[in-house]
Amino acid sequence: MNLTEALRQLVGHEQVSVNPTMLEQHSRDESYHRPHTPDVVVFPRNAVEVSEVVKFANSHRIPVVPFGMGTSLEGHVIPYQGGITLDFQRMNQIVEIRPEDQLVRVQPGVTRSQLNKELKKYGLFFSVDPGADATLGGMAATNASGTTAVRYGVMRDQVRDLEVVLANGQVIRTGGLAVKSSAGYNLTGLFVGSEGTLGIFTELTLRVYGIPESILAARASFPSVESAVRTAVSLLAVGIPIARVELVDRVSMEKLNRHSGTHYEEAPTLFLEFHGNEAGLQQDVQFAKDLAADHGCSGFAFETDAKGRNTLWEARHNLAYAFVHGSKGKKIMVTDVCVPLSELAGAITYAREQIEAAGVEGGLLGHVGDGNFHALLLVDPTNRDDLDRAERVNANLVDYALRCGGTCTGEHGVGVGKLKYLRREHGEALDLMRQVKQLFDPHNILNPGKKLPID
Amino acid sequence: MNLTEALRQLVGHEQVSVNPTMLEQHSRDESYHRPHTPDVVVFPRNAVEVSEVVKFANSHRIPVVPFGMGTSLEGHVIPYQGGITLDFQRMNQIVEIRPEDQLVRVQPGVTRSQLNKELKKYGLFFSVDPGADATLGGMAATNASGTTAVRYGVMRDQVRDLEVVLANGQVIRTGGLAVKSSAGYNLTGLFVGSEGTLGIFTELTLRVYGIPESILAARASFPSVESAVRTAVSLLAVGIPIARVELVDRVSMEKLNRHSGTHYEEAPTLFLEFHGNEAGLQQDVQFAKDLAADHGCSGFAFETDAKGRNTLWEARHNLAYAFVHGSKGKKIMVTDVCVPLSELAGAITYAREQIEAAGVEGGLLGHVGDGNFHALLLVDPTNRDDLDRAERVNANLVDYALRCGGTCTGEHGVGVGKLKYLRREHGEALDLMRQVKQLFDPHNILNPGKKLPID
Repeated sequence: MNLTEALRQLVGHEQVSVNPTMLEQHSRDESYHRPHTPDVVVFPRNAVEVSEVVKFANSHRIPVVPFGMGTSLEGHVIPYQGGITLDFQRMNQIVEIRPEDQLVRVQPGVTRSQLNKELKKYGLFFSVDPGADATLGGMAATNASGTTAVRYGVMRDQVRDLEVVLANGQVIRTGGLAVKSSAGYNLTGLFVGSEGTLGIFTELTLRVYGIPESILAARASFPSVESAVRTAVSLLAVGIPIARVELVDRVSMEKLNRHSGTHYEEAPTLFLEFHGNEAGLQQDVQFAKDLAADHGCSGFAFETDAKGRNTLWEARHNLAYAFVHGSKGKKIMVTDVCVPLSELAGAITYAREQIEAAGVEGGLLGHVGDGNFHALLLVDPTNRDDLDRAERVNANLVDYALRCGGTCTGEHGVGVGKLKYLRREHGEALDLMRQVKQLFDPHNILNPGKKLPID
Repeated sequence: MNLTEALRQLVGHEQVSVNPTMLEQHSRDESYHRPHTPDVVVFPRNAVEVSEVVKFANSHRIPVVPFGMGTSLEGHVIPYQGGITLDFQRMNQIVEIRPEDQLVRVQPGVTRSQLNKELKKYGLFFSVDPGADATLGGMAATNASGTTAVRYGVMRDQVRDLEVVLANGQVIRTGGLAVKSSAGYNLTGLFVGSEGTLGIFTELTLRVYGIPESILAARASFPSVESAVRTAVSLLAVGIPIARVELVDRVSMEKLNRHSGTHYEEAPTLFLEFHGNEAGLQQDVQFAKDLAADHGCSGFAFETDAKGRNTLWEARHNLAYAFVHGSKGKKIMVTDVCVPLSELAGAITYAREQIEAAGVEGGLLGHVGDGNFHALLLVDPTNRDDLDRAERVNANLVDYALRCGGTCTGEHGVGVGKLKYLRREHGEALDLMRQVKQLFDPHNILNPGKKLPID
């Protein structure tokens, strides 16, 4: 009996596909990484089916790769060893909303926009916003963050409980509904960010927040990237509770205007958002404006209504597409270093120099409140020289970040793209991580070849 | 060669003590749990010495128990199997303060008051405040929290990096200086809360915060515990960024006034603190006052100056001592359940009924913003009947908490006192936790008998 037939005995016939178009759709993510097709795609409907498939795969040593929306940026969902791709699009139910507990329970295939649409009815929102409309399962798997992490934290801070299918098919729960716990070991935090290599999520309980009384967005233009960054760092140092503070460099502002039809000033810019009560916001924003002026801000423009605010953040979110758009055949390589705040201005200046020295087309974007920034580098993935030059920029930025105590990936995860940096980042702790992988997945069937290097 | 002599070859002669008074001081914590002396106490000065001692202990299968200030409440530091107690009092250096990065690097023996005293010079503070002046190593080991968790999070949220000595003596670092990372597995979060059973901390990098522009404290008295709790939950639901919201019941207010010489109204009371900017605070506080009035608040009193505020929080922190004080021979058993916010009022009402039905002397205190509360129960540890009655209250509260998705311990940890509840709380995940312990500490020398039950 072949693999497809065997899987069709475990789940419904129409839940197993070997259609070439389907395999091809599951062979890639949004990055420059080389595609590879799975042998088969399975669409489970519940934890029991996931457990059955994983148990089968484990006993036959077949790789299993979980797949959400395919928006990963380091090849996480590409099944380089073939096997089974588990696509969670049929597990997309919002199971329960508990407004008083500020919690929701969702299946892993729910996307963040789907969740936010539903939460709005309760005056609530889910905070993590990586730009792409990823699934919540995928976001938990990579410990995603994005524009609001500076105020509300990263994905790991929101996950209260996980239902996880282990490599042997066992189904466990890792947490509970309490705000905090000092009971058993923190498995929840270990699974979050494990990129499908330790277990497969079949349900998530997430923290949500009340929509703030007042929201105010603003753009502030600066003479240089450094002055913009220094403004952001100073704002945080004095404890202004900024909800978003995003750097967009001049090159990226040009792309953004062209793609989104906006007419923002084409200078290094901070996109800001403040959440709070009316009176408090007035004081915070005035303070921010004064501080920006001290750093040479040439224009501070408010977006007071929801429409202007949405335009602003949509334009920001579409920036990656803005770069690729109109560059036929080009893909993006996105760097993702995160450095201590005191090192951020230096790191961003260095990044701009590196991009120019390498002769790569690219822009700089930053979640500067976290010390995390991206160089969006346009590459032709079929052109070795193109790839090499971009790869060199990437490597040099990682080198810079690791030298100052930072990380090679602030939010995208390791996938296959960052494997080569992990030994240097983690030192001997990497050996312990490998032992953890060996314990959780002794036959190495769970997203093999991702997250930890073989050396 | 005996144990003492062997250890004296690894560390300085005077760093190893078998003095009976010294052993006795390391035989107990602040709880009702039965004392037991270690065979020897070692005072390491650095990670190399810790590594040498642990390596020796591992090869000779000798238990090692780390010890900070001995303020644990579930017997964590009691060496029930004898062996070596590692007392960190000589590793009490603040290694580095990085104001711009809002980070500090400390040795595990630094206490939180010691750290805050130093941070004040930089306009910074360390947020976690469990009441006791515990060491930061101990607080990380139990994932401590306390009064400010509702705003700033628990200990795990503050630990950015750990230097850890593993059971085989290897020294690893688990994190870095970046605000966030999606690189290797989250070992930092796994070690935090592991109660010395997975590795021993020799250095911690912690997040600190700027002292807010304005701080305002208040007391609000209510006709019942329920109305106080409902006020707190409503305040959070509308997103008021409260920094502290503590419930003190009537019995505890009486003890508090008697012990601290205060003259607060002896009714169920919320102790509140607001952090923010001046304008924002005014609006928040007015809102809180109105909301409290809606719930029947009979008195809302501000503490606008630092002196009144300090008196308030000192009185709150000394409450455990207030109960023990003057009750000769009595010790405290402290329950520590944490429930979803929607279940908090019911759980606290149930707790009061249980205390009265059992005929135990006790008060109720709550970090109500987290759904976490304590019954402080006075027991004579030599009186079996006394212990049994208090133990029954404890068990019934845990039962209640677990039924509604809560936890047996919100912040004190498991130690030995909560072992019997873990199977029910974690289900099959407990087996995975045991495998993790087995992986990290194959000879079970690290704080053996704590954190996970044998079943």
